[in-house]
Amino acid sequence: MQEESASPSARPFDPGCPLTRDTEQGEDRAGRAAVDFPVAVVLPAGGCGERMGLPTPKQFCPILNRPLISYTIQAFERLSWIGTIVVVVAKENQDLMLNIVQTFNHTKVKVVNGGTTRHRSIFNGLQVLSNNTDDALTTKPKVVIIHDAVRPFVEESLLLKITLAAKEEGASGAIRPLVSTVIATTLEGYLDHSLERAKYRASEMPQGFLYDIIFQAYQRCSEYDFDFGTECLHLALQYCGTNAKLIEGPPALWKVTYKRDLAAAEAIIKETLATSACVITEAAAEAVELAGALQKNLATQSMMVTDIITCTKESNTDFLSKTSNFIQITVNGLNTSGLLEMVKHFEDTGHACLYPVVVVWVQLNVTKRSFDTQKTDELTSFRRLASEIKQGNVLLYGIHIDHTEVSEQWERSVARLADITGALIRDRNPALIGQLLHA
Amino acid sequence: MQEESASPSARPFDPGCPLTRDTEQGEDRAGRAAVDFPVAVVLPAGGCGERMGLPTPKQFCPILNRPLISYTIQAFERLSWIGTIVVVVAKENQDLMLNIVQTFNHTKVKVVNGGTTRHRSIFNGLQVLSNNTDDALTTKPKVVIIHDAVRPFVEESLLLKITLAAKEEGASGAIRPLVSTVIATTLEGYLDHSLERAKYRASEMPQGFLYDIIFQAYQRCSEYDFDFGTECLHLALQYCGTNAKLIEGPPALWKVTYKRDLAAAEAIIKETLATSACVITEAAAEAVELAGALQKNLATQSMMVTDIITCTKESNTDFLSKTSNFIQITVNGLNTSGLLEMVKHFEDTGHACLYPVVVVWVQLNVTKRSFDTQKTDELTSFRRLASEIKQGNVLLYGIHIDHTEVSEQWERSVARLADITGALIRDRNPALIGQLLHA
Repeated sequence: MQEESASPSARPFDPGCPLTRDTEQGEDRAGRAAVDFPVAVVLPAGGCGERMGLPTPKQFCPILNRPLISYTIQAFERLSWIGTIVVVVAKENQDLMLNIVQTFNHTKVKVVNGGTTRHRSIFNGLQVLSNNTDDALTTKPKVVIIHDAVRPFVEESLLLKITLAAKEEGASGAIRPLVSTVIATTLEGYLDHSLERAKYRASEMPQGFLYDIIFQAYQRCSEYDFDFGTECLHLALQYCGTNAKLIEGPPALWKVTYKRDLAAAEAIIKETLATSACVITEAAAEAVELAGALQKNLATQSMMVTDIITCTKESNTDFLSKTSNFIQITVNGLNTSGLLEMVKHFEDTGHACLYPVVVVWVQLNVTKRSFDTQKTDELTSFRRLASEIKQGNVLLYGIHIDHTEVSEQWERSVARLADITGALIRDRNPALIGQLLHA
Repeated sequence: MQEESASPSARPFDPGCPLTRDTEQGEDRAGRAAVDFPVAVVLPAGGCGERMGLPTPKQFCPILNRPLISYTIQAFERLSWIGTIVVVVAKENQDLMLNIVQTFNHTKVKVVNGGTTRHRSIFNGLQVLSNNTDDALTTKPKVVIIHDAVRPFVEESLLLKITLAAKEEGASGAIRPLVSTVIATTLEGYLDHSLERAKYRASEMPQGFLYDIIFQAYQRCSEYDFDFGTECLHLALQYCGTNAKLIEGPPALWKVTYKRDLAAAEAIIKETLATSACVITEAAAEAVELAGALQKNLATQSMMVTDIITCTKESNTDFLSKTSNFIQITVNGLNTSGLLEMVKHFEDTGHACLYPVVVVWVQLNVTKRSFDTQKTDELTSFRRLASEIKQGNVLLYGIHIDHTEVSEQWERSVARLADITGALIRDRNPALIGQLLHA
């Protein structure tokens, strides 16, 4: 069967905010309608990550070969109603940051040098936006969102609420319930008293401000605030008399602080990438039958096969942009030229730029010949191909499956095939590319 | 080379507290010396995990096939100076909990029914310890530690500090710096004021108490405290006038609260399990040479090959308890009987009971025959063997490597072998057992 043709304006598949699937075209349109004023973002990213216990500052730590900060940038960049993202980095990381912007094709980013503290960095970011130059990226915004570079999973729905509340009230901020009881300590290190949890909240990011208010607050605030303050909402209150509207945020707002948080972020991204797959199959009856069986089996692992494409001369390639996982079933050896065309398409569209694409080649053996006749040179060229296309961020794995008429045996094989396929797609392990496994 | 014989009293390898390596025999001896009074633990585990978004309460969620709570229990059980661990669970989870105790061979655990709130559950746990029965597990302790079932990474050094401070001061508790600014909100949902972060701390677990103090506090406290209180330290202060000594804890104390925390915990455990490996090799010169090269390559991945064992008639099996990862190099097919003996040994010692053991069989091909002569029935029996020993929690993978005199090519192959071996050991992926990969 051939998939339905998608609208040509469909944005490429983007789990930029992997925890939520709510950022569909419809909502972005709603966002554009609601936000009819210029909005910019300031991302202070000057931290040196000493809490992490890692040599690299955490915002630059890679997840699936892409620095964390690029995920955060992408969470804003994909929204049409956000114009500029000012990233403030320490001077020594400026080249690194410019390189990230180029490598991952970020088009709305302005890189700015940071100050010695978080507040000084934010102020530097805001100052860039105060110039009324011709540069579209530095047009003075109505509302500015301040966010952390290390909170990549911010959702559009929350950004909309923060932005509209900031426009209305002058300032707004995300809050979360307290996870632990907060206690006051005596100077000697004993319990003084504990706070009543229900009355307090943790102040998180993002926060939104009318640009004029937060810029004024920074212009008025003291050196002490610049050096020791932690809370932008507090500055707006103290120096402009603006009480921020507080908005309950989701757990996904959490800040990547420790090494374990990187592992958690990676798991979330991988899980989101693995929710869908597309099966491309030869027209042979056994292959088409296998495609259907695989679809059922993968569904039990919460992986939805959204399309089953039968190879024809049809040149519609819309399905390629809808997922990052492809399962190619053949009975006659790998369709190398088809695969290379696919890789070329990803290069042209930038589809594999942000997330690695997985291709699992399922080699269905319908002859009575057993696997040991597999030629070494075939294997060698498969491995070479896999390592070639890895350059384009495409991870190629192979799985061999013997067809059999014995239905119980066949079902076991298909279940194993689905297990292995699911594991390869979920893990996206570059060390295993070019391997030919057995179901 | 044959490894040095270890002391027969050596405890089996145990990353029960994976984040730290400081719990060596020496320190446990120090712990035994310092703590010359009975200590018990109460682990309230009645929560239903609604924050997780999972059907299973988080303390029962499996990591590497073992429920989270078993890791927490193990963190206490491995310490000789801790006598009893009272686990308080909701009535509907009692059978599940008893089953966990049996499956993972926990010997110090007493399972108790929980109350309707956290404080009622803790009180239930304390009451069991008030009976002066003959049951050694319910002897009244001098000090009781209260901990969360969902904080598996608690270190002995902190437990010692908490215990000794509780003995000295009557009460003690772990604290952490606040991660976010804490703010007070107005009734209308606006910012009222923000707290000065430096004056406050997050109260965490574990906490320690003189048994008589905390038991008395619970006997005196109000129904309101039972229903809405959150803080045991607060009860000790209010009802017994005991100011708890506060002790700064490490980041690893964090509480597994959300689904992402499970992923983080799994990553920590897997990483810790993957820090060491043992290579067992045939005596053939090429195999021994490969063992050395592999050791060097794995070191660059932070995986230390602690022992290289050459197969001899020697029956010393101490090396088997020192790691959970074994790499077996052969030039003549898999040493199936050796492998089965190893699995038998793990069964007898319970070594694979807590953590899955990985065996990577490296098949070194020194003939000019190419891989395609590998017999299907050999592969089939390898896969059957792998799925058999998986029952005993041993994960078997195979990697084929062709020997060559061309040194550059050989080095590339060895590097690939190390990459794949490292990936298999780090991932412990059950879907890939019985696969024969190619370096």
